[in-house]
Amino acid sequence: MKHPIIFDTDPGVDDAQAIAIALRHPELELLGLTTTYGNVDVEVATRNALLLAQLAGRDDVPVAQGAASPLVKTRFPPPAHIHGTNGLGDIVLPEVQGTADPRSAAQFIVDTVNARPGEVTLVAVGPLGNLAAALQLDPTLIERVKQVVIMGGSIREGGNVTPVAEANMFNDPHAASRVLTAGWPLTLVGLDVTHRCVLTPAHMARVDASQGELERVLAGSYAFYRDFYQSFLGIDGCCPHDSCALAWLLKPELFTTARGHLTVITDGDAEGQTILAPEGRAFIATRWSRTPPVDVCLGVNGNAVSDWIADALS
Amino acid sequence: MKHPIIFDTDPGVDDAQAIAIALRHPELELLGLTTTYGNVDVEVATRNALLLAQLAGRDDVPVAQGAASPLVKTRFPPPAHIHGTNGLGDIVLPEVQGTADPRSAAQFIVDTVNARPGEVTLVAVGPLGNLAAALQLDPTLIERVKQVVIMGGSIREGGNVTPVAEANMFNDPHAASRVLTAGWPLTLVGLDVTHRCVLTPAHMARVDASQGELERVLAGSYAFYRDFYQSFLGIDGCCPHDSCALAWLLKPELFTTARGHLTVITDGDAEGQTILAPEGRAFIATRWSRTPPVDVCLGVNGNAVSDWIADALS
Repeated sequence: MKHPIIFDTDPGVDDAQAIAIALRHPELELLGLTTTYGNVDVEVATRNALLLAQLAGRDDVPVAQGAASPLVKTRFPPPAHIHGTNGLGDIVLPEVQGTADPRSAAQFIVDTVNARPGEVTLVAVGPLGNLAAALQLDPTLIERVKQVVIMGGSIREGGNVTPVAEANMFNDPHAASRVLTAGWPLTLVGLDVTHRCVLTPAHMARVDASQGELERVLAGSYAFYRDFYQSFLGIDGCCPHDSCALAWLLKPELFTTARGHLTVITDGDAEGQTILAPEGRAFIATRWSRTPPVDVCLGVNGNAVSDWIADALS
Repeated sequence: MKHPIIFDTDPGVDDAQAIAIALRHPELELLGLTTTYGNVDVEVATRNALLLAQLAGRDDVPVAQGAASPLVKTRFPPPAHIHGTNGLGDIVLPEVQGTADPRSAAQFIVDTVNARPGEVTLVAVGPLGNLAAALQLDPTLIERVKQVVIMGGSIREGGNVTPVAEANMFNDPHAASRVLTAGWPLTLVGLDVTHRCVLTPAHMARVDASQGELERVLAGSYAFYRDFYQSFLGIDGCCPHDSCALAWLLKPELFTTARGHLTVITDGDAEGQTILAPEGRAFIATRWSRTPPVDVCLGVNGNAVSDWIADALS
């Protein structure tokens, strides 16, 4: 059985790894890539998405460009020290041949989901503006999406751009609030599990060994990303955040989840924080438990997921 | 060496345990009890503080009444299902003989600290209105307090009255913000460690065995508090939250701490949350790292602390 997916992304080094899996994995039918600002400007994200599809021999896959900025808040500059100015570790990149779909990412999502009601899984690994915009165009989309898998947020792990906020949620907390409380079947794959997974230099050497053009880009950008992890976090290797969303989709038995109600803080010093009120747990007031329940990944077999990702890339 | 302390409290079942330790432990010189609303109304808190001192044969210890309500926010009713309407598990209590000090809690703190500059430790285990009011009366107090130990807050553990807020912080987040960022030497003893400690029925049987009047009150109120832990949290026993602050003061080697900058959220769905920005860690902006650094307990030998508390009470 293949999962038909739309992959919403801001590539970005770890996005590129996940895109490579999405383009090639035999259990995934990639209906399209939709792009957003985040790790890079949206034009750079679109170029990288087109390039990765081309290098995989999959220029049949549509790429639709979306959000260039957050819904409400003022945008921070992209983190060039993590992903490079070109989003792929500032390695020299081949020319891009293809062009983007004329539709906005949001329109592409609406059209594609409505063409195959009940079948399509949305996997989003960047700021959530495109999904929020799709819900603005068609709020009834929640009835026809099969499921939504989000890489983002943090429950107990703390944040990576603030002490409590994960970068995708912090980049557009208003969009995140809309998407995470929309009432569609949703799983959050956040730092509580992605920080338990490490793609090691040994893993990446296996990927690089296949000597393809796509693999060269993945290995080259990994080297840059690894420098960030070493100097800022003291880890030898990288957290493959975005690939974890696909790992959850295809290997859910490697994760443990909790069901509960999410609140996303949109303002103040906690902005971008994802708060989980576990289902059935009473608090001093009901306001934390009003949103529709979702599933949140809290535990993972990190070694098994990291190995699965390396296998999928090799 | 004795630690001269002022113990700020809203008794409360677990407060009563900590007050009993404060009244009797040979390494503590209890200069006074100051009371606040929180687990109970402030008048009830004052009566319980007077009663516990009396039952311990320590009616020489001054009791000064303070905050009846939060600084800014609207007050929630006291949690009678946890501590009982009388704060001590609704057991029948003896008559109180003594009366409170004529000064407010805040004035008592200011006078007592300034009389012994550099010597006095403030231990606060309820909402922080009295310490905030003391800083309002005399902001230079921060130079003359030896140290401040706070039971409250949560960094990674989640909250107990909201998904992210601990009760003392939630009850008066504005006071908490003032106190936790005042710039005095401060240690936070929050749910990250108090939830690792359990005072078991076996522990409490040892306390009850001594058959004193004070021990009868501690054991009787414990039985009520234990019912709450069983029905709401599925734990057989009680977390001795407030005694953990004294355990940290006298047995710091049983805890692990991190140093960092605290932010207390005062509004919105995260109100009452304590956010820790670890010292030296860079985030996307500097606003989480502006407050003076403090120490936060993150780990504990829970069995050793629980045993120490039972020993101190027996």
